[in-house]
Amino acid sequence: MSKPATPVAPPLKDELDIVIPTIRNLDFLEMWRPFFQPYHLIIVQDGDPTKTINVPEGFDYELYNRNDINRILGPKASCISFKDSACRCFGFLVSKKKYIFTIDDDCFLESEFGLGSVICMSVNCRDEFSLFAGRGGAGVSFGDLGVNGPREYAKKKFFVYVAKDPSGKEINALAQHIQNLLTPSTPFFFNTLYDPYRDGADFVRGYPFSMREGAPTAVSHGLWLNIPDYDAPTQLVKPLERNTRYVDAVLTIPKGTLFPMCGMNLAFDRELIGPAMYFGLMGDGQPIGRYDDMWAGWCTKVITDHLGLGVKTGLPYIWHSKASNPFVNLKKEYKGIYWQEDIIPFFQSVTLPKESTTVQKCYIELSKMVKEKLGPIDPYFTKLADAMVTWIDAWEEINSPAQSAPAADAKKDGPSSKKK
Amino acid sequence: MSKPATPVAPPLKDELDIVIPTIRNLDFLEMWRPFFQPYHLIIVQDGDPTKTINVPEGFDYELYNRNDINRILGPKASCISFKDSACRCFGFLVSKKKYIFTIDDDCFLESEFGLGSVICMSVNCRDEFSLFAGRGGAGVSFGDLGVNGPREYAKKKFFVYVAKDPSGKEINALAQHIQNLLTPSTPFFFNTLYDPYRDGADFVRGYPFSMREGAPTAVSHGLWLNIPDYDAPTQLVKPLERNTRYVDAVLTIPKGTLFPMCGMNLAFDRELIGPAMYFGLMGDGQPIGRYDDMWAGWCTKVITDHLGLGVKTGLPYIWHSKASNPFVNLKKEYKGIYWQEDIIPFFQSVTLPKESTTVQKCYIELSKMVKEKLGPIDPYFTKLADAMVTWIDAWEEINSPAQSAPAADAKKDGPSSKKK
Repeated sequence: MSKPATPVAPPLKDELDIVIPTIRNLDFLEMWRPFFQPYHLIIVQDGDPTKTINVPEGFDYELYNRNDINRILGPKASCISFKDSACRCFGFLVSKKKYIFTIDDDCFLESEFGLGSVICMSVNCRDEFSLFAGRGGAGVSFGDLGVNGPREYAKKKFFVYVAKDPSGKEINALAQHIQNLLTPSTPFFFNTLYDPYRDGADFVRGYPFSMREGAPTAVSHGLWLNIPDYDAPTQLVKPLERNTRYVDAVLTIPKGTLFPMCGMNLAFDRELIGPAMYFGLMGDGQPIGRYDDMWAGWCTKVITDHLGLGVKTGLPYIWHSKASNPFVNLKKEYKGIYWQEDIIPFFQSVTLPKESTTVQKCYIELSKMVKEKLGPIDPYFTKLADAMVTWIDAWEEINSPAQSAPAADAKKDGPSSKKK
Repeated sequence: MSKPATPVAPPLKDELDIVIPTIRNLDFLEMWRPFFQPYHLIIVQDGDPTKTINVPEGFDYELYNRNDINRILGPKASCISFKDSACRCFGFLVSKKKYIFTIDDDCFLESEFGLGSVICMSVNCRDEFSLFAGRGGAGVSFGDLGVNGPREYAKKKFFVYVAKDPSGKEINALAQHIQNLLTPSTPFFFNTLYDPYRDGADFVRGYPFSMREGAPTAVSHGLWLNIPDYDAPTQLVKPLERNTRYVDAVLTIPKGTLFPMCGMNLAFDRELIGPAMYFGLMGDGQPIGRYDDMWAGWCTKVITDHLGLGVKTGLPYIWHSKASNPFVNLKKEYKGIYWQEDIIPFFQSVTLPKESTTVQKCYIELSKMVKEKLGPIDPYFTKLADAMVTWIDAWEEINSPAQSAPAADAKKDGPSSKKK
């Protein structure tokens, strides 16, 4: 076959936004430039809004800081977490695109629980192992292995790398997510050869033909190589464990089955499921952390199940080089570890009413159930249930036809910085 | 670490039987000798009982032909299929071991539907591709690529090979099945790093701690490399498709999800689920074929779900070199393809009563539901439902304490040939 005369445009170039929550300069984008540069970025700046975030040259982006969030959402801004990567869902809210890919460099302030000094363990450059100690976010003094502080460190070492497949080729994570989203899912029956829509695969003997059209794919959940996504207790027990197994598979999480969704390498169809991708109340002033993506995943899964949509997990991999501080994580997680023993049975028992035919309606119903069933566990869940309603209000306000029209107040709704 | 002074015994050597259904000499065992020789084989000879089946030297086996089955089961022998690999379940019945591994060389008579001539396509020795045509089972004339007939062919070329992993190492399929069976399953919540009990893996963040003990594993379902396990329509449409993707994963099929279970590379815990592993009525005198393992899989899955047991799929791979005749397969399958559109919703809706606390009780309940719900589709299902009851009667008779005692009539219950 001859090559086309003109280069093929990157897939979904005008239909996908990359959402990145951050507290610091986005040098890590350099590494992702070959894959991300054609796309529009929505950067959600967490923490101090007076800080200037540098974005490498050549990227097309809009950036929102806390002042922007407060200005755009007004009192509804209360539903957007502060000092936590959960703030990323603001980017989902203001996007006007059909698809979202979200990734971050996984370097967030760990001081919201008052731990002044942190210990970070990091496997750098995939081979070298270093251990250093310092003052969270302040970059004053280090333990040290030639590293001068978190900011300096951040300039030199990233936490999320482009992964390589077993042949040594760099993985275009975004392209794989797009492929996952553009092909159907199989939530109603398990295919033992995994994704039947991949090249070289199909439905096996015994797979009902009436189910082979599959279901529209709402979510594509990618995985991590190297540092696994473990909770604090597992981090503490297995500090040296690394995920070295490249599993060459994409599969649909069956209907009726919950899974732990990680928000760091995630894509979804915003039109199909966007309003369910709320990352909850975490970080500043909240009693838990590190459950933002889990919460979004559980809500999303019961709603996709109800609406007949699919959720895929597996490829693509990204390379994760940083083990976050397990002691800080434990402090963030411990209530969640306790509460999830009730949260999971709750989500497993959720049945949404037939009348809930849109994601928004489903989400409002879910918020009522959260208030009723989880509220008695802790006042936090009542607050969270209210925030879920606020989130939907904000979603509908920002995504109403009037807001999308050119007449909308650009000053009110726009980001604080923008570059094309 | 120093090596142990004495060699370690093969795992489960005295607790596992290998069940092989066949119509011909078992030369294919030569290739599997390093892995199978320590274990006891139960060979179920299908077709003409007067034919002598040669088993390579050095294997410890017992062999049952149709005369043995009729003698041992009497009128209950009607539940064991004839001229179909579904007869393998007789081996499950007479085993006295806790675990079963079943494999076959996948070369069964294709003449029961009256197709005299067959066309077989085969990829041999993993690279060479050959197409030959002949007279099914008769070995009269061939198309030909230096092959003289099915029997001659069978002596030279096997259909199920030992597969190799990506490093080129031969895969000990049995050892992997044993590992799968001896570690728990995770049917109640999906783990995104797949089997958390494997070396280098664990439960990821957000996996409830109360669920990390998992569930006892009842079934380990292995996969095929090379020729995929496709139904006839897919074989016809994709004659050249090969499964070349080695997916390095074992995962639990979640509770509430059905899957297509293939019987050619399968292991299970006979004490936990044996009575559900009935391969139905196929072959001689029956209106369908190639649904024996599917039927067993669907029955097994609803019963494991009810009893809180786990079913795993994935590794190990075997190498499948033979594409069976798609025209013959279509003739065997077409009613099944049609009926499964009702069978799957039926199994998806099955709810077993709380009082069904054993596999036998569950299976009897299921047989009643099959008669009631599937009987109206075709008289075949009424016959099948009756055979399900007969199977349980046979299971209980053969596996009653009296039968296991030394006083049992060895002449009545023994195989026609045996070697140690």
